[in-house]
Amino acid sequence: MTNANMFEKITLIGLGLIGSSLAHAIKRSHLTGHLTGYDVSADVRQIATEISLVDDVASDISTAVAHADLVILCAPPGSMGSIGAAIAPHLKPGSILTDVGSTKASVIESVGPHLSPDIHFIPGHPIAGTEQSGPRAGFPELFDRRWCILTPLPDANPQALEKLTAFWQAIGSNVEIMDAKHHDLVLAITSHVPHLIAYNIVGTAADLETVTQGEVIKYSAGGFRDFTRIAASDPTMWRDVFLNNREAVLEMLGRFTEDLISLQRAIRWGEGDTLFDLFTRTRAIRRSIIDAGQDSAAPDFGRGKKH
Amino acid sequence: MTNANMFEKITLIGLGLIGSSLAHAIKRSHLTGHLTGYDVSADVRQIATEISLVDDVASDISTAVAHADLVILCAPPGSMGSIGAAIAPHLKPGSILTDVGSTKASVIESVGPHLSPDIHFIPGHPIAGTEQSGPRAGFPELFDRRWCILTPLPDANPQALEKLTAFWQAIGSNVEIMDAKHHDLVLAITSHVPHLIAYNIVGTAADLETVTQGEVIKYSAGGFRDFTRIAASDPTMWRDVFLNNREAVLEMLGRFTEDLISLQRAIRWGEGDTLFDLFTRTRAIRRSIIDAGQDSAAPDFGRGKKH
Repeated sequence: MTNANMFEKITLIGLGLIGSSLAHAIKRSHLTGHLTGYDVSADVRQIATEISLVDDVASDISTAVAHADLVILCAPPGSMGSIGAAIAPHLKPGSILTDVGSTKASVIESVGPHLSPDIHFIPGHPIAGTEQSGPRAGFPELFDRRWCILTPLPDANPQALEKLTAFWQAIGSNVEIMDAKHHDLVLAITSHVPHLIAYNIVGTAADLETVTQGEVIKYSAGGFRDFTRIAASDPTMWRDVFLNNREAVLEMLGRFTEDLISLQRAIRWGEGDTLFDLFTRTRAIRRSIIDAGQDSAAPDFGRGKKH
Repeated sequence: MTNANMFEKITLIGLGLIGSSLAHAIKRSHLTGHLTGYDVSADVRQIATEISLVDDVASDISTAVAHADLVILCAPPGSMGSIGAAIAPHLKPGSILTDVGSTKASVIESVGPHLSPDIHFIPGHPIAGTEQSGPRAGFPELFDRRWCILTPLPDANPQALEKLTAFWQAIGSNVEIMDAKHHDLVLAITSHVPHLIAYNIVGTAADLETVTQGEVIKYSAGGFRDFTRIAASDPTMWRDVFLNNREAVLEMLGRFTEDLISLQRAIRWGEGDTLFDLFTRTRAIRRSIIDAGQDSAAPDFGRGKKH
């Protein structure tokens, strides 16, 4: 398979965890003749230059996208609209514009209207990440064997969709095509609500009067520490996710709370069988995730024996 | 430091993850001249014999504890009372009896009344574990650098407490002394409620009509998969934990739900600052846990680059 210079010029807008990981992965697979990067933060641009993350770091966004055959927006969902407005007049006719945002209906709504019909706009979302952020956090393997969901509009250009699919496969991912609304519902339960409840329990624990913060930290190996990893994720991005996928998050959160209240009742009334039955069912899901290659089979994610 | 044969005979009642890990750790540090094991399950006793987990596997519980200088109950909280009743007449006068149960007030209530005054009963709880269970799941490093909480009664024998403290230190742990009631409150927030909400969200996700179980599994890398690890923990043990630490769990769960409803409202009304402020605060807790040596600093628990 030769993917060499699949695109003559690729531009990354946003050089945080995902943007910098894409830069490494694009270079690993030689997918472009020229890789340009831009970030709204001068500090980030400075670091990107220092570590030679891309071929050139543009100092303004319109220069960054000029002549690019593929432009990838790697910015928080809340800033997609203004980025779309800023770049639209400078995009090359016939080029592909995509993004990596965690919410898809909102990106279509906020970016779509700025674009002329000769731009192939195909929103996307790689299901990959870590709790770290910034241009130094990226690494080329981040997307390997993970899924990337593309949410083309019904009138999307088939050749452009095919080319973007091949791009993500060359990055190391599996690609799935999905309707944007459905994507937002799936991600609400597999990503957004899990993040919200992780943030929430860490906040609850920090606010207690009867248990000190020092105790919470010391005894965190009982389960709590797992939640703190997720709750260390980028605050700006996650604020934007919740504000931009409001309906789906509220729907899933309603289900979660309803189920939790029912478990609370089972505990209060000593209904052991209700608890045992749920706890047995959930084990099977873990096994399926490991079988699907989406997590490590090692106990405690493999960290148990190492530190 | 010489810990060789700190106890002439040690008996482990229960040979699951914790019991088998203790067996490995006791042998690693040569803490006894003779290590006896017992488990209520004939299958587990068979496996323990096959893998030479202990010096001898007793086939009945009274023989197991006879002449032992230290007896450690490694069974689910719900079975502690009946084990206490069964072993009490056979315990050696002057011996130490401890346990590793996740709830402490309930163990004191259910085991204490069976014991004669010449038994040094000092309940304990090592804050360590993985999602796996059974006699093959144990490994000697499980307790290294983790905390073990001892909850002696006010009239506990100081020499016995000192000896049990030295034992856990020789196992690799740090030891903290705490009141049983306070232990139950601390663990409710650092362990029990985190497990409950992990079990709960995995159940909620499995029951959805709008998102298939296959989708939940495929896209679990967005955060959900972390919860499935915890939700794969032993169902019997965790049912017993919730039934035996009911009050503290219900109290902490009430706080969690109150905070979650308030976040839900912030999402509904688009209050981005409320979300951003919480998400920034929770990052600091993660940093403290890593600084305290209670978790790996590697992104994604170090699993990101490996599979």
